[in-house]
Amino acid sequence: MGEFELINQYFKRDTSGSSVVLGVGDDCSLLQLPAEKQLAISVDTLLADVHFPADGDPEAIAERALCVSLSDLAAMGAKPLWFTLALTLPEANEAWVSAFSRGLFRAANTYGCELVGGDTTRGPLSISVQVMGSVEPHLAMKRSGAAVGDLLFVSGTLGDGAAALAVLNGSIKVDDESSQYLSGRYYHPEPRLALAQTLAPLASAAIDVSDGLVADLGHICKASSVAATVFVERLPLSSAILKCAATPQQYQWALSGGDDYQLCFTVAPANIAQVEQLIAAGLDATNIGEITEGKGVHCRLIDHPFEIEGTGYNHFD
Amino acid sequence: MGEFELINQYFKRDTSGSSVVLGVGDDCSLLQLPAEKQLAISVDTLLADVHFPADGDPEAIAERALCVSLSDLAAMGAKPLWFTLALTLPEANEAWVSAFSRGLFRAANTYGCELVGGDTTRGPLSISVQVMGSVEPHLAMKRSGAAVGDLLFVSGTLGDGAAALAVLNGSIKVDDESSQYLSGRYYHPEPRLALAQTLAPLASAAIDVSDGLVADLGHICKASSVAATVFVERLPLSSAILKCAATPQQYQWALSGGDDYQLCFTVAPANIAQVEQLIAAGLDATNIGEITEGKGVHCRLIDHPFEIEGTGYNHFD
Repeated sequence: MGEFELINQYFKRDTSGSSVVLGVGDDCSLLQLPAEKQLAISVDTLLADVHFPADGDPEAIAERALCVSLSDLAAMGAKPLWFTLALTLPEANEAWVSAFSRGLFRAANTYGCELVGGDTTRGPLSISVQVMGSVEPHLAMKRSGAAVGDLLFVSGTLGDGAAALAVLNGSIKVDDESSQYLSGRYYHPEPRLALAQTLAPLASAAIDVSDGLVADLGHICKASSVAATVFVERLPLSSAILKCAATPQQYQWALSGGDDYQLCFTVAPANIAQVEQLIAAGLDATNIGEITEGKGVHCRLIDHPFEIEGTGYNHFD
Repeated sequence: MGEFELINQYFKRDTSGSSVVLGVGDDCSLLQLPAEKQLAISVDTLLADVHFPADGDPEAIAERALCVSLSDLAAMGAKPLWFTLALTLPEANEAWVSAFSRGLFRAANTYGCELVGGDTTRGPLSISVQVMGSVEPHLAMKRSGAAVGDLLFVSGTLGDGAAALAVLNGSIKVDDESSQYLSGRYYHPEPRLALAQTLAPLASAAIDVSDGLVADLGHICKASSVAATVFVERLPLSSAILKCAATPQQYQWALSGGDDYQLCFTVAPANIAQVEQLIAAGLDATNIGEITEGKGVHCRLIDHPFEIEGTGYNHFD
C-alpha cells in the first residue's frame, strides 16, 4: 500500500444510515438527493501562501476550507449534504494530514455534511472543496431576485475579516480579547446556514460577503439590474472593531474588507414586516440600505456621499 | 475586471433547456437530477508533469482530463450530466485557456455533459474535474458485486496506453500508422459510456482499467471477497501492439499497463448467454477469465501460471 493510500485512510468515515448510498472507495460515490429537491453545488480552491499560510495550523486550514465553501450554500439557501476534497500535498506528512482531517470532520459534523469523494495527489499544497446541498425549488436565493423598493440587510457584523488581517500582519495593535475574537472570526468563519434556512422563504436575493460588501452587493445589483444604497452609519460593527480603529477605518473595513462570510440579502416590501419581527425576536441581521433604480452600489453617510477608499469613487458599478 | 475574470469567460456557455436550473455565475449552480435516479460523482486531479506534460497541447490535456473522469462514471454505469472544473494556472495565458476550453467543450459535447461550476486560481498548473451523473438505483455496477462462477470480460483492447507511452518516450519504434493509433489512444481516451449503459442491467461488477488490468481487477476481487483467473492468451490486443512488440511484452502491457480506460466487468451465469449474444452482434468486449473462490488475481497462459513482470508474482492480492 502506497503512502498516499495510507493517507487516504484519514478521510474514510462510516456514512451508513445517511443519504450516502455508496461512499468513498468505488469508481464513484452514489448519493440519494431528497425527493423534490434541487442540487446546489459550489467549488472553491485554496492555495498555500495565496489563500492561507503554508505553515498555518492544518486543523484551522481544513475547517476554513470547508466553511468558506459552505458559505456559498448558505447564500443560496441550500442545506449542506455532501462534499468532495481534491487535496494536493507536497509530501505524505502523517501528522499534518491527521490534524487536517480532524479539522475537516469537526466542521463537517458541525454543519451536517459528509465527505463522499476526493483525490489525493503529490504536488504544491492546494485544497479544492466541492460542496453539494439541497434546496427547495423556488426557495433558492439567487443574486438576480432583487427589485426596486426591496430593503437591504446583512447578517452579523462586517469588517472583522479585514481587521483580523490587520492584526495578524501587525499593522494595528489591539487588546488580547479583541485579538482573540478577530483571529477566531478569520480562522473559523461561520457559514450562516441556519440563518439562511430561515430567510430562504423571505429574501428576494442573497450573496455571501467574501470579497467585501460593496463588491459582493455589486454582483446582486448587476444580476438584478438595479442599484443599491448603503447607509454607512447603519453598518453593524463588532465591539472589537469599535475599540481598535477610528470611524473612517471601521467603515472602510466593513465596506471593502473581505473574508467576513456574512450574508447580504434583500427583502421585498411584502416580507419586510416579517423579517423585522424576526430581527426583533433575535435574528442576527441589520437593515443597512435599500434597492433603487439605476446601477451600482452607492454609499451615503448621514445623507452625504461616502467615498470608498482605494476606488476614489462613492459608487461601484 | 481582472485577468482571471476574463479567463472565466472562456468557460461560460448557454445551458438553457437542460437539467441546469442555474448555471455558472451565482454562489451555487442549481441542478435538477432526473426523478428516481441516484447521483454518481467522482473527482480526479491531474498535475502538470505528473499526469501530463506541462508543455503539452492544451486541447488534448483538457479533453483527456474530462474523459478520464467520465470513465469513472462509465465504470458505475452512470449517465453523465454535469461537471465542475477547479483550474489552477501559473498565468492568465489567453491562447492556452482558449485552446483548453475548446478541448474541454468538445469532449463535453461528445459525451453530453455540462460545465456547471468551477474556480480559477493562480498557481502551479493543476486540473481537478468532478463529474456527476445519474444512475438507476439497483443498476449501478459496484466493485463489490462479483461472485464465484461469474465470467470476466474487458471492453476494447488492453495495453495500448502503455505501448503509447513507450512510443512517446522513444523506447520503441513503430510505423506511422501504429504510432498515430497509439498516441490517439493515449491523448484521447474514450470513456466507454455507451457500452456501460448496455451492460449496467447485465454486469455484476465493473471497474475502469486506469492503473492496469491486474491492479484494477484486484480491487473487484477485494471488494467482492473473491479471486479471479485471467487467461492471458485471450487478452484482446490491438493490431498496433501485435506489430510493435514480442508476445511477452504485449501481455505485460495488457496486464499491468495503465491508461487504457476500458471497462473490466463480471457477469453472473444467468446473464452470460445474453452478454455473449451482444458480443456476437458487435458489442466490443471479450471474455478473458472467470471469478473463483479465494483471493487475488491469478494469470495463466495456456494452462501454466504466468508471471507478471515487476512483481515477481503470478498473482496479486
